[in-house]
Amino acid sequence: MDLNLKFDDRGLIPAIVQESAEAGGRVLMMAWMNEDSLKHSVETGYMHYWSRSRQNLWKKGESSGHTQRILRWFVDCDRDTLLFEVEQHGGACHTGFASCFYVELDKAGNDLPPQEEPLFSPDSVYKA
Amino acid sequence: MDLNLKFDDRGLIPAIVQESAEAGGRVLMMAWMNEDSLKHSVETGYMHYWSRSRQNLWKKGESSGHTQRILRWFVDCDRDTLLFEVEQHGGACHTGFASCFYVELDKAGNDLPPQEEPLFSPDSVYKA
Repeated sequence: MDLNLKFDDRGLIPAIVQESAEAGGRVLMMAWMNEDSLKHSVETGYMHYWSRSRQNLWKKGESSGHTQRILRWFVDCDRDTLLFEVEQHGGACHTGFASCFYVELDKAGNDLPPQEEPLFSPDSVYKA
Repeated sequence: MDLNLKFDDRGLIPAIVQESAEAGGRVLMMAWMNEDSLKHSVETGYMHYWSRSRQNLWKKGESSGHTQRILRWFVDCDRDTLLFEVEQHGGACHTGFASCFYVELDKAGNDLPPQEEPLFSPDSVYKA
């Protein structure tokens, strides 16, 4: 797969993940891909990422079951960022919330209380 | 402004920019902010970025008039990515398209032809 993408000096490219407009169009998360995780994502139809902290390939939902099925994908004008439209199974965030962007900030930069409930309890999903 | 954000080793944090759900909820672009551009954004209510190539602060729309007025903003669970909901004036992309993600890819990774027309001609907006 030669996509003529601009990976950064670590060999990574940011992937923005959004649910479909029909499902609300919410931005769910941003994570990093290397060429291998991109290949796995496109070949299997499910999102795979590269963990910068663990330095390994991971399939979203491999522990939690909260997979992301790819509906469509896009590249930006600079070819250095990807956007995936997905069908999210369960919650995208490891905290239990639907989206990782569940904290809104006010004009002074203070966290506002979440206006939603978590979809699941992390303790019940992630084993120790 | 102490937001307890995780800037990377270059002092930067990615900012995802999305139009409001009422306007379609489309992801328009991703760009980078440093602490100064974030401060300018929040204080003025308009998106400002840090240009990695030019190494300077820039206000989105300073040349083109295609400004982005901030409606709401969010931080993710890791506090290392920001999401801005904006009112986009004109097109977000320097190519003239509404969004920088105007190129969809097929399953083999080939570019598909844009399914939309540009909103403006770059030549008419950006002076030499």
